[in-house]
Amino acid sequence: MNFSSDNAYGADPRVLAALAEANEGAASPYGDDPWTEKLREAMNRLFEREVATYPIVTGTAANALALATLCPQHGAILCHAEAHIAADECGAPEFFTHGAKLVPLEGEGAKLTPDTIEQALKRFKKGFVQHAQPAVISLAQTTERGTVYTPDEIAAIAAIARQHDLKLHMDGARFANALAHLGCSASQATWRAGIAALSFGSTKNGALGAEAVVFFDPDDARDFEYRRKKGGHLISKMRFVSAQMLALLQDGHWLTIASRANGLAKRAAQELKAIPGVEIAHPVEANAVFARFPDAMLVRLRRAGMHFHDWSPSEDGKTLVRLMFSFATPDADLEQFLSIARG
Amino acid sequence: MNFSSDNAYGADPRVLAALAEANEGAASPYGDDPWTEKLREAMNRLFEREVATYPIVTGTAANALALATLCPQHGAILCHAEAHIAADECGAPEFFTHGAKLVPLEGEGAKLTPDTIEQALKRFKKGFVQHAQPAVISLAQTTERGTVYTPDEIAAIAAIARQHDLKLHMDGARFANALAHLGCSASQATWRAGIAALSFGSTKNGALGAEAVVFFDPDDARDFEYRRKKGGHLISKMRFVSAQMLALLQDGHWLTIASRANGLAKRAAQELKAIPGVEIAHPVEANAVFARFPDAMLVRLRRAGMHFHDWSPSEDGKTLVRLMFSFATPDADLEQFLSIARG
Amino acid sequence: MNFSSDNAYGADPRVLAALAEANEGAASPYGDDPWTEKLREAMNRLFEREVATYPIVTGTAANALALATLCPQHGAILCHAEAHIAADECGAPEFFTHGAKLVPLEGEGAKLTPDTIEQALKRFKKGFVQHAQPAVISLAQTTERGTVYTPDEIAAIAAIARQHDLKLHMDGARFANALAHLGCSASQATWRAGIAALSFGSTKNGALGAEAVVFFDPDDARDFEYRRKKGGHLISKMRFVSAQMLALLQDGHWLTIASRANGLAKRAAQELKAIPGVEIAHPVEANAVFARFPDAMLVRLRRAGMHFHDWSPSEDGKTLVRLMFSFATPDADLEQFLSIARG
Amino acid sequence: MNFSSDNAYGADPRVLAALAEANEGAASPYGDDPWTEKLREAMNRLFEREVATYPIVTGTAANALALATLCPQHGAILCHAEAHIAADECGAPEFFTHGAKLVPLEGEGAKLTPDTIEQALKRFKKGFVQHAQPAVISLAQTTERGTVYTPDEIAAIAAIARQHDLKLHMDGARFANALAHLGCSASQATWRAGIAALSFGSTKNGALGAEAVVFFDPDDARDFEYRRKKGGHLISKMRFVSAQMLALLQDGHWLTIASRANGLAKRAAQELKAIPGVEIAHPVEANAVFARFPDAMLVRLRRAGMHFHDWSPSEDGKTLVRLMFSFATPDADLEQFLSIARG
Repeated sequence: MNFSSDNAYGADPRVLAALAEANEGAASPYGDDPWTEKLREAMNRLFEREVATYPIVTGTAANALALATLCPQHGAILCHAEAHIAADECGAPEFFTHGAKLVPLEGEGAKLTPDTIEQALKRFKKGFVQHAQPAVISLAQTTERGTVYTPDEIAAIAAIARQHDLKLHMDGARFANALAHLGCSASQATWRAGIAALSFGSTKNGALGAEAVVFFDPDDARDFEYRRKKGGHLISKMRFVSAQMLALLQDGHWLTIASRANGLAKRAAQELKAIPGVEIAHPVEANAVFARFPDAMLVRLRRAGMHFHDWSPSEDGKTLVRLMFSFATPDADLEQFLSIARG
Repeated sequence: MNFSSDNAYGADPRVLAALAEANEGAASPYGDDPWTEKLREAMNRLFEREVATYPIVTGTAANALALATLCPQHGAILCHAEAHIAADECGAPEFFTHGAKLVPLEGEGAKLTPDTIEQALKRFKKGFVQHAQPAVISLAQTTERGTVYTPDEIAAIAAIARQHDLKLHMDGARFANALAHLGCSASQATWRAGIAALSFGSTKNGALGAEAVVFFDPDDARDFEYRRKKGGHLISKMRFVSAQMLALLQDGHWLTIASRANGLAKRAAQELKAIPGVEIAHPVEANAVFARFPDAMLVRLRRAGMHFHDWSPSEDGKTLVRLMFSFATPDADLEQFLSIARG
Repeated sequence: MNFSSDNAYGADPRVLAALAEANEGAASPYGDDPWTEKLREAMNRLFEREVATYPIVTGTAANALALATLCPQHGAILCHAEAHIAADECGAPEFFTHGAKLVPLEGEGAKLTPDTIEQALKRFKKGFVQHAQPAVISLAQTTERGTVYTPDEIAAIAAIARQHDLKLHMDGARFANALAHLGCSASQATWRAGIAALSFGSTKNGALGAEAVVFFDPDDARDFEYRRKKGGHLISKMRFVSAQMLALLQDGHWLTIASRANGLAKRAAQELKAIPGVEIAHPVEANAVFARFPDAMLVRLRRAGMHFHDWSPSEDGKTLVRLMFSFATPDADLEQFLSIARG
Repeated sequence: MNFSSDNAYGADPRVLAALAEANEGAASPYGDDPWTEKLREAMNRLFEREVATYPIVTGTAANALALATLCPQHGAILCHAEAHIAADECGAPEFFTHGAKLVPLEGEGAKLTPDTIEQALKRFKKGFVQHAQPAVISLAQTTERGTVYTPDEIAAIAAIARQHDLKLHMDGARFANALAHLGCSASQATWRAGIAALSFGSTKNGALGAEAVVFFDPDDARDFEYRRKKGGHLISKMRFVSAQMLALLQDGHWLTIASRANGLAKRAAQELKAIPGVEIAHPVEANAVFARFPDAMLVRLRRAGMHFHDWSPSEDGKTLVRLMFSFATPDADLEQFLSIARG
């Protein structure tokens, strides 16, 4: 039973069906195909404006290429210290930006606040060539702790960004889960709140491997297509990437299955809260539960074949653990987890 | 009817079936799954030794990451002036190597010869820091003109490489077509002839998107896994990439379908040769035909809906054209092409 | 009167005299000259072992090239958050390492401690490709707050470095001032304590522009010469850089003039301490004084033409200020500063 | 006796005197000093317009930083195959541009012609992301073979550049020698003919180490200052670099001494032409003589202590040799060279 990551599960059946359907005859490679064209239109509709949509295969590439497009070589990118771009991409953003500086900030629930950002900006003198020049703020939505920024929280950060002439990037590896939680429109959660570029994740939400970089102002996308090619990220048979995302977007299926994953997490949190010794560490707003478990309970769970990640070393007999729920996690797995936890 | 590229066609049915089969339950991401393990074993068997196999999604990434692993920042990479790495990857090798120098060389049929290489090496003074230091020779197999290096030809180049302490890389985007032509073993076509690293392509041969970088001496692979991650090329649900290649390798299916493509090209060449005004430009050894057509004939062909690429501007009323045949090109398409060409 | 930086002053007279002397006849460029050879020998003697010495013109280049030589692309470099390499080089280390990650750590007096380092190392999982791999610890000697690591403090950090297979780099932009304070040998302050590479600064200590990167184990220097050239840092008329350093090393002149600068700082601190309202913020061990001044006093000092840097924004009517003393700061300037401070 | 390079000689006496004069009191570092301000004004006057002038220490850095400012990561830079940027900078332009592609072209006397450039441009399809996009043409003035582009020749190339939206860069490591030969104004030789950026060399013309990057349209300089810092090329005591160039510019001294060097070369060529067996290979327009010498004569010359570079391997008993004359080459050395050559 696997609660270790939402990429431990495979693909949604609709995604596989879409691949088979897309496998008809010849089509121009490199994105000049009908599926990619339809994806662009679907994204325009979803975001209620003309956006620039670029399919890509990994989340790290989506983030790194988006950041490199928004941030000059001498720029700085502000993000949470636990952000995927800072902690889990082996320096991909530094590589693709040619050495821009990531500025790791603290914040409860892995969230940035206007205050932390303003404090951090004071360290950088504008136009002073010795200092990397702040150029981008990157928010993870959901965050690495499974919390979600509200449109108002984003807008408050965007106000600072505008004031200091920074662009706002959103790492939306779990954008579906965030939107399913917020219940607002995709545009409200992004550009209407001030986001300039979104790494729109589908892999963790039922695709085999499909992401898109979305620039809400196509002018911001400038050299993106060259960067994508030069980074080796231009997919030749792109129809198969676009078809995956199209299948998920159709009839809001992406949100339906993300809601299911969120629902599992919520249910898990409610039940776990009631188990003596277990403490929920952060508001459970999407598909992750962060909780402190007694170490003995963790031994029991692992012995029973439960897979999940420790998030920090054991302290006072308890360990902070992350449980991740995906679109495909069986209900029965959660029940069994809870039953063993209860002891 | 599409003869423009072998990536204009989709996936082999076995590949799609394999994806569906691989979509069972949870599996560890990032290559720690049974499919990727099986692929590694299959590659070991295919090459008759323990090799280091790294699945990846694009051919440009496979080449650039392999080259960056073999070539230091201050190195030089010798290749044909028409090589994909030199002419069609927007400088990806320069980017991933952090500025190594590609040295474009001439050669009939897009092939390098020992002589051209030795002449080129004279330009670089060993240990002289002003000069980029030759570190790698990269051969395309098949070449960009559809010709194929024999094991003996490779071995002759490898002898120079050894003498000058260079590594040999093979861009095998069409390795299947080359091997199907040569009829020798995979090991004879690679490491036994002196190849250190192979970009093993499957995308052009029936996969949706699947390549592998293979290092024949695992020691040469040193930092490859970090580079792959830092380049955004570590696929999270890697089982779906590995499963594609496994399906193709099974029962030699990859060579069977590559042979079919080669056969179409061969037949095309034989028939075209007989048409007055058409000249075959290079030996047809794999799945490409390079031929000079009278411009009027080209107009007729295009009007009839035939797609293909001009390879150089028209000269004296004739244009050099590339016809590409894939595992999925219908026989009927070739017949119709020939019939229109005959006029 | 200038207390803003130790590079506000020009060159020591011996340095200018040495340039004139070095201007005789023809000499091989790029370091193949007698002055550079003599500098190498002088460094071997100074450090009591054979070292690899590379003259260079800026401190930022010395640091960035040394770090790039020690740290792979996928590595991480631990340093103090206020370290010059982290805060004042516009991301040069990230650029030259091709995107290695700088890990900024806290510490009193801008010093790292074994404890902070060990805590930080826990965040990185060895061999986990998502994590940049810690490869280097960089210490500034003197630190950015004018404090000095003792050989024992360095050795304690070196013990951790060894244990985790990290290399120790020293940013010695003010190595002369540190050594003048410590009174130990150059070898005790560096390799005997565990330092692998030193950015040996002379510019702030009387040169026009002269630094050297010193690797204590020449094997660590591997590709340095290519990196230096590729970075545009190979000086053609290198004799003029080497001659500057030779002139300073002769008869210990570098330490004599560094001591003078240190002495000014010490005297300043003693006198300032006695002025009501002024607080010395850090131990004054080299040529910098960090002190909190009443804001009114600062206004008075600046009106009188005193130049110096605020180090942080005013708080409760006081501001932390840095006073920098150089080999050439006139005694009279300090007297006048003190007299105006006293009011 | 040294004819190997024009950087084998030291500094002009005026340069050393200027350093002593500049060594007065304190001055703001990093270019915010009166000498650098005066240099900017001197450059404005010299070029008869407001230009952006950035002092720097090496020619490789000047070229690489200028090119990186003008050329995007996905760009291509056209230059002669023998150009210093292509053949002798260990890939510095590739590194600083983050992997732009250098396109080496052939041409008599190491000169590019409009025709060669137009032919080369045909290989690159505009907007096709697989192709690096031509962005810059770089001309060496003087060329590596000691020839000089006339303003008309530059203007003809500039016309193509404009038509294809490319910028023109001039590697002026020996700009003084070129201008001394042309006898026109500095503006006629540069921006009036269409040059956008100039690497203005002084090191080979009497400085210890001083170059400047000059952008004729300051808008083109955009991020240059950040790149210079990030590349480790921002000199702290910049007054000493600026003072060197100022001393040379004063009263046209730079052209006077460059003329002397040119004169030596011209005289050498005239005399050598008369010696049986010696053939002058290229028009001698600046301070270099390229000539084919009988190998026996070369042995004699080297035995007599003459230093110079072979330019290509011996063929039919003769070797192409480069003789370089500097502002400081003694007349007597040339006389002795000729006398030994005459046998």
